[in-house]
Amino acid sequence: MNEFDLIKRYFQSGGLTSPVADGVELGIGDDCALLYPSVDRLLAVSLDTLVADVHFPAQADPALIGERALRVNLSDLAACGAKPRWFTLALTLPEMNKGWLAGFSQGLLRVAREYDIHLVGGDTTKGPLSISVQVHGEVEPKLALRRDKASAGELIYVSGTLGDAAAAVRRFQGELQTDEEAAIYFTDRFYRPTPRVHEAQILAPLVTAAIDISDGLLADLGHICERSEIGATVDLDRLPLSPSLIRSFDEKEAVQLAASGGDDYELCMFVPQTAQAQFEDAAAKLGMPVSLVGSSSSLHNGVKALFRGEPAELDSTGYQHF
Amino acid sequence: MNEFDLIKRYFQSGGLTSPVADGVELGIGDDCALLYPSVDRLLAVSLDTLVADVHFPAQADPALIGERALRVNLSDLAACGAKPRWFTLALTLPEMNKGWLAGFSQGLLRVAREYDIHLVGGDTTKGPLSISVQVHGEVEPKLALRRDKASAGELIYVSGTLGDAAAAVRRFQGELQTDEEAAIYFTDRFYRPTPRVHEAQILAPLVTAAIDISDGLLADLGHICERSEIGATVDLDRLPLSPSLIRSFDEKEAVQLAASGGDDYELCMFVPQTAQAQFEDAAAKLGMPVSLVGSSSSLHNGVKALFRGEPAELDSTGYQHF
Repeated sequence: MNEFDLIKRYFQSGGLTSPVADGVELGIGDDCALLYPSVDRLLAVSLDTLVADVHFPAQADPALIGERALRVNLSDLAACGAKPRWFTLALTLPEMNKGWLAGFSQGLLRVAREYDIHLVGGDTTKGPLSISVQVHGEVEPKLALRRDKASAGELIYVSGTLGDAAAAVRRFQGELQTDEEAAIYFTDRFYRPTPRVHEAQILAPLVTAAIDISDGLLADLGHICERSEIGATVDLDRLPLSPSLIRSFDEKEAVQLAASGGDDYELCMFVPQTAQAQFEDAAAKLGMPVSLVGSSSSLHNGVKALFRGEPAELDSTGYQHF
Repeated sequence: MNEFDLIKRYFQSGGLTSPVADGVELGIGDDCALLYPSVDRLLAVSLDTLVADVHFPAQADPALIGERALRVNLSDLAACGAKPRWFTLALTLPEMNKGWLAGFSQGLLRVAREYDIHLVGGDTTKGPLSISVQVHGEVEPKLALRRDKASAGELIYVSGTLGDAAAAVRRFQGELQTDEEAAIYFTDRFYRPTPRVHEAQILAPLVTAAIDISDGLLADLGHICERSEIGATVDLDRLPLSPSLIRSFDEKEAVQLAASGGDDYELCMFVPQTAQAQFEDAAAKLGMPVSLVGSSSSLHNGVKALFRGEPAELDSTGYQHF
């Protein structure tokens, strides 16, 4: 089976692509995909690579790798308030393994259907296992969420719970013994994070700046502070922790994972105080838990973390590749 | 130096991006790039990965790797007749090597300036050396070149010369001894192919179907035949060969490389007989050599190669990864 048969079998025929997909003049099988962007929308694009044994264990279930690859990229669209439209996939594989490809494409497909995004092109290559996905979304120019529009005196919210994916990584590395329910929950949070795509589009009018939490809350908040030229204070006591996290770690470790762990792909959002009630109501209607974890200030001095009212010392300020 | 400093130093400050780049609302440094696509244009996108020791020698000059990474992707835009606009870059590196990054970004920059395309986003990751580039271009819907619009009775042209990049690969693998001039020429053709971006936009109204020659002429012609449901006959005697190729190989080997070698990134174009004179004139005005190498037929039986009027036996029908 050559590269062309492989693409056909696993990615073209499997339902990932559709000849009638919205806005697609020409999908997989030509030199370029040809797309019709919507008039009066900004095109939001993000390209991310996941490398085996850096971003996921090489031996992981390929369906979960497929899910994670698309979910973490969709999270970048969520962070901009964009509606998902199309994605491209560059897949580098050490060998043509039909079982792996079948699983991987099934994982991708589940997520693509859930988020209504269509595979329009890509590339397959022989080499060490890695996956690059570029997502393409659209957003009204006035509603695009960015990192550089936060102001002093705003409230800082995060969605969901934090630290769960970092707990999964600890477990993969053999550094965590926990009960089966927590183990399953952490693993699911790592491979199947919930990109807040729909919620971000609804909440965008009430949010001044946003980022998805991939590097760790404090590090990602730091990106917003730097780009918006503000400071931020976070009350670590307020970080939303899952029951599994609370059960599996002592308090200090749990807070550390939630503050710095990364990989949760929840949203961190800045909300003006005047919009607080409306924001919380809208989030509740969407069924998305949000927690008020801090506030911004005019001091351009980075991110301060408080624990029980005292400045907190943390081991790290986020996940970094280099 | 962390990931963020690295991006800033080599890709943001180096001139690859510009805050005033046409159509860019927001470039590097946020979760997504935000772009303004042109009204009434199709967006053409293509994502390709280059893996060390598969697509280029790992020890190659990083500036040449940067050039090649962008040039081969621009060639996909040429094959669709699209005008380059923006690109994203996902770079996976085994270690943070400043010299390598400086060289690589300089190579990228040279090509980006030459083709007026702007870096708008991407990702850096730790892992085995590989480079994914997605290019974004725009094309009038009526002028988009595709693989599926060729008809029977058309003339098949190729640009430039063929087989030179394959000769370079032979040399990298220690299988070719040649004179210094030829060695330099082949190496340049491999690392610095000439994406026919401008020429394709001008010639598009006279061309029914096109593909860039990455897998080898016969294999790439096969893709057009399959998608357009036609057959093609190629006169191998007519394949355009460079003086270096002729000097370095016996005739049969030279023709074999030109027919099946791949990696030249020249264009293969289908032209109606009624447009022949106009096409040749327009190509001459552009200073782009074109060679008539065959014709299409209604027999949906793939690609036939003739050598001195007899059916030719070739060792392979193109480069394939798997």
